[in-house]
Amino acid sequence: MKNRIRDYGINIGKLKTGINNLITDVPGVKVGHVTLRKGNINTGVTAIIPHEGNIFKEKLVACSHVINGFGKTVGTVQIEELGTLETPILLTNTLNVGLVSDALIEYMLKENEDIGVTTGTINPVVCECNDGYLNCIRERNVSRGHVFESIESADVIFKEGAVGAGTGMTCYGFKGGIGSASRIIELDSKEYTIGVLTLTNFGRGEDLVVDGEKIGEKVFCCNEEDKGSCIIIVATDIPLSYRQIKRVCKRASVGMARTGSFIGNGSGEIVIGFTTANKINHYEDKDIISIKIINEDKINLIFRGVAEAVEEAVLNSLACSETLKGRDGHVRQGFGEILEKL
Amino acid sequence: MKNRIRDYGINIGKLKTGINNLITDVPGVKVGHVTLRKGNINTGVTAIIPHEGNIFKEKLVACSHVINGFGKTVGTVQIEELGTLETPILLTNTLNVGLVSDALIEYMLKENEDIGVTTGTINPVVCECNDGYLNCIRERNVSRGHVFESIESADVIFKEGAVGAGTGMTCYGFKGGIGSASRIIELDSKEYTIGVLTLTNFGRGEDLVVDGEKIGEKVFCCNEEDKGSCIIIVATDIPLSYRQIKRVCKRASVGMARTGSFIGNGSGEIVIGFTTANKINHYEDKDIISIKIINEDKINLIFRGVAEAVEEAVLNSLACSETLKGRDGHVRQGFGEILEKL
Amino acid sequence: MKNRIRDYGINIGKLKTGINNLITDVPGVKVGHVTLRKGNINTGVTAIIPHEGNIFKEKLVACSHVINGFGKTVGTVQIEELGTLETPILLTNTLNVGLVSDALIEYMLKENEDIGVTTGTINPVVCECNDGYLNCIRERNVSRGHVFESIESADVIFKEGAVGAGTGMTCYGFKGGIGSASRIIELDSKEYTIGVLTLTNFGRGEDLVVDGEKIGEKVFCCNEEDKGSCIIIVATDIPLSYRQIKRVCKRASVGMARTGSFIGNGSGEIVIGFTTANKINHYEDKDIISIKIINEDKINLIFRGVAEAVEEAVLNSLACSETLKGRDGHVRQGFGEILEKL
Amino acid sequence: MKNRIRDYGINIGKLKTGINNLITDVPGVKVGHVTLRKGNINTGVTAIIPHEGNIFKEKLVACSHVINGFGKTVGTVQIEELGTLETPILLTNTLNVGLVSDALIEYMLKENEDIGVTTGTINPVVCECNDGYLNCIRERNVSRGHVFESIESADVIFKEGAVGAGTGMTCYGFKGGIGSASRIIELDSKEYTIGVLTLTNFGRGEDLVVDGEKIGEKVFCCNEEDKGSCIIIVATDIPLSYRQIKRVCKRASVGMARTGSFIGNGSGEIVIGFTTANKINHYEDKDIISIKIINEDKINLIFRGVAEAVEEAVLNSLACSETLKGRDGHVRQGFGEILEKL
Repeated sequence: MKNRIRDYGINIGKLKTGINNLITDVPGVKVGHVTLRKGNINTGVTAIIPHEGNIFKEKLVACSHVINGFGKTVGTVQIEELGTLETPILLTNTLNVGLVSDALIEYMLKENEDIGVTTGTINPVVCECNDGYLNCIRERNVSRGHVFESIESADVIFKEGAVGAGTGMTCYGFKGGIGSASRIIELDSKEYTIGVLTLTNFGRGEDLVVDGEKIGEKVFCCNEEDKGSCIIIVATDIPLSYRQIKRVCKRASVGMARTGSFIGNGSGEIVIGFTTANKINHYEDKDIISIKIINEDKINLIFRGVAEAVEEAVLNSLACSETLKGRDGHVRQGFGEILEKL
Repeated sequence: MKNRIRDYGINIGKLKTGINNLITDVPGVKVGHVTLRKGNINTGVTAIIPHEGNIFKEKLVACSHVINGFGKTVGTVQIEELGTLETPILLTNTLNVGLVSDALIEYMLKENEDIGVTTGTINPVVCECNDGYLNCIRERNVSRGHVFESIESADVIFKEGAVGAGTGMTCYGFKGGIGSASRIIELDSKEYTIGVLTLTNFGRGEDLVVDGEKIGEKVFCCNEEDKGSCIIIVATDIPLSYRQIKRVCKRASVGMARTGSFIGNGSGEIVIGFTTANKINHYEDKDIISIKIINEDKINLIFRGVAEAVEEAVLNSLACSETLKGRDGHVRQGFGEILEKL
Repeated sequence: MKNRIRDYGINIGKLKTGINNLITDVPGVKVGHVTLRKGNINTGVTAIIPHEGNIFKEKLVACSHVINGFGKTVGTVQIEELGTLETPILLTNTLNVGLVSDALIEYMLKENEDIGVTTGTINPVVCECNDGYLNCIRERNVSRGHVFESIESADVIFKEGAVGAGTGMTCYGFKGGIGSASRIIELDSKEYTIGVLTLTNFGRGEDLVVDGEKIGEKVFCCNEEDKGSCIIIVATDIPLSYRQIKRVCKRASVGMARTGSFIGNGSGEIVIGFTTANKINHYEDKDIISIKIINEDKINLIFRGVAEAVEEAVLNSLACSETLKGRDGHVRQGFGEILEKL
Repeated sequence: MKNRIRDYGINIGKLKTGINNLITDVPGVKVGHVTLRKGNINTGVTAIIPHEGNIFKEKLVACSHVINGFGKTVGTVQIEELGTLETPILLTNTLNVGLVSDALIEYMLKENEDIGVTTGTINPVVCECNDGYLNCIRERNVSRGHVFESIESADVIFKEGAVGAGTGMTCYGFKGGIGSASRIIELDSKEYTIGVLTLTNFGRGEDLVVDGEKIGEKVFCCNEEDKGSCIIIVATDIPLSYRQIKRVCKRASVGMARTGSFIGNGSGEIVIGFTTANKINHYEDKDIISIKIINEDKINLIFRGVAEAVEEAVLNSLACSETLKGRDGHVRQGFGEILEKL
């Protein structure tokens, strides 16, 4: 167990994957987790570092997209206006968003002495799902130390499943959490990467579909109402404008739907996308600057890639999670156990 | 052939269908077609009549939703501002939208002598797909007479497949066109209906999925780039606010994705939704009025219903269309022939 | 009379104007009018030509912005998705939008033999206001010949006031219509132009403010409810992305508010903006392309320019319109008569 | 000094004001401040309590509107999806949004033992402006105790000017802060109230306009780039749907523009609106519910009211603020001193 979905012979889509089939296949992107797991406490923080430089000083062209807005993600207002990302993206449980946001501000202030003195402020981006079934969410056990640790421990290789922000999540009635995948496409004879990371906490058991097969109808029992959420981070090194990333992010819902979701009312499904190909300087001395974008006639390649990678990332979040017993004895079964049998 | 998808033993979803499994199962809704089919000419008009009264005088609460905006639908700006529909909805080919819109204005002026004299003007709603592969679209063969005829011939029972606006459309490389379906849900112990009509003209052959099975990979050859469109009309008698219909219409994309679409760049995918449960008087003498809406905690029922009905309507558009030879000898095969063999 | 607002010593804002203080100060932009004026008929067409080449083959980066959507403008769905403009922009009366749209399609087909045969279709952009007080709008007197003529007669120098689409419009209870203005700003030591054209048909008489002075309270009588509309076209040669033009277009409402408007319910206020600095080839052979954009820290200069130019364009539409007696003896006084007295 | 703008004989607009000309004229609405003012520390918290019951259990129909999104307000994603407000609205400085959000979650958990156990989570709404010119914002001096105190001290009568979140704000180069105003309108022979509260921190000195008079050009010196923000809270007891409140909130920008703003790039201008007339039960047992809305033909009355009240609230924030010397000896002059002289 703890294998990825491909280890069970299930290959999603047709495009080539990146070297590790992870969001970190996009050069410069790193992911770090802090996992809190002890009795009733099953939660954590996951940090996505978008590039290796100073993110505030070299912002990335970015966008957010709300598939269903029953969620508490912070930072999207400014992303939508300016089309840029200027901090790492943090994921955590719903009731810790305020604290994590506060800690991320603290982190950014430390890294940038000009903020709030000689230049403006900072827009922290923090996304969340509600892990209250397995985690005593009211206790709000995430601390600012956890936030710093998640950022500082970020690396190219990272775990999936019940780790970091994914520790206490539930997906299609099974244990959910962190999943990732990537795809390679070629433009002007050069290879580019699309990377996806999902924090899965949505879906009703009987709705689960794996590569077209309606597995949920066959194996599952728990059919509580869909009350979760799903956070989807899309990273790429393909040159895109804000408008183009927006279009790309909208295709994330296709990957979700292919796993059986109908975008439930209670599910906060939020996409944050960015490209490392266009950096915007905080202190820019030219009045007119150049950016590169994709010829719109070629954008279907990216659309396919995102749909495939999101579908696979969701399935990886399931495949990589072991059974977890959490708050008040609540249990979520690892989906790997099912896959082993099939 | 010319059977619907259920006639092949393929039952989409779990919810009960309405009496005819058509959009017109929503009381008051009617559909009319005018089909132009002769050699290079394969086009037409389809009219959806939202209720039996004077639509301008008794507007319906409505919304539009753009899944992908590479399209020329008219009337959405006002629908989005005021949340109301005040004309029939007409579907036609892309290059006839102007003329059909003009004819719809003429029709509304005839029906309402006050428009433009003692009261304001009218917001015609016309949607389109590009049938240029099978139809000599540059000739723009639709006339205003066809528009009036489509409205006047509208009825509860109507044909699907290569009829009306669907005459020259292509879906997943097969012959597409008009498809419909409906679902029943129960609220406060009363039955309500969700009806869907699709005009399908999208998708690449190899992507087609039928009830989870990747049929497109197995049977098809034509894999041109996805350049079509899809218009989706959602009607219901469930009491909804503008915001709620908006949420409902967003779930249409789930039904699309289940048939294999990844929402291609070139596909104008537009949803128009309305409820017959809330009529807004053009001449209202009270300052404060009441409307009924659904308890948001129950809205998942409608989300499921719309996802199912859209998936089935798309499949009906395929199943009901026979092979058609059109412009310059271009051919689109009827999908029924494939279904017969399976 | 028939002077512009500056001829009365009223100078709006502080930025330098372009050479003619017209939208056509943006190199390549031209404007043409066809005016229909005879008894009860007081309407017309105005064409804005965005550049001198083939607009379908060399599209411009563009956006639309809805200030208040009680209007029937067509073409915005595709502009918002693709961020491009591919036809001239036509203005006319509300009930002729369908016909004008149809004629614009015809014009584009003539200019481009590939449309609908070897390439896709065309997205006509047509905006409107309701001139029904002075014009027998139900007769719909605009013909397709008028449309072609408006395009073909377009020039750098053009009339303002009761001409073209502005012939029968009413603004703040006075005779409104077409107004224009421009502003110059400097970026990287080079001069750029912001040009604005307004079709004014909004506002209640007593609300009119001229350069801060509440003139409407002092001189006017007619205080019918605000039921009009206002179309605002923003052109520039400053390099901007879609997102940036969107931000620029949002500042048009500031110029409107300064003339006294509170954005009435019945007023369809729509902005279309484009930049001539970024042309997007219809047949592009590279997969990755470059565009130029403005350093966001400098965008305030454009915001000021647009606010000033819109305010002045609205006032020019008033100042340049003479008293007109139209349908059923309805009269709208020329505002120049008031300005003469002041 | 410390008078309101009307005390100087300046009466904005024509509609009748509410009894105190404050947002709290809307029955049930209360406002509380905590002011931190000592040397370099000039900041605080302001709480707007939307009604007197349990806000989580009885949510209000609400919306948010982004005039310019260069801001860090949290809570808007869910407001936009569900159209409801379920917490008090808190205002503070930019770098304390995370902490205030965290404290608001804590407050709501204390008030509602079901949250996170037997029911879902909570959506805190926190808005901000950057008071870094007068306040050592990097020190982030707001504590969770201040948050609780602001909520608990809320009352119908409250101070304006340099208090609460307004303590360190700058408006048009003068000392800005909290301002409020209200208007009365009549519908179906009954009086209703529109209340506005603004947190002002925007505008360049020379742009200031007071009731049409360009005072900024005459009296001021400081002309730094506009880098602030403005938060506008709109409360009413008029029955409105989400869509209608949205339309109402959009008119806040008119009031802003009348004071001289052109909506600067750096200014995060966010509106949150709610109506106390439609309460949505968290535990609702009916599937279909009724809400009351306004006849759209009457909505202009509210539009006017909001535009007037916002204009007056901005001017009150100026008139009520005394000169303040803050961080590093930075000074913002009280505008009352100017008004005294005029």
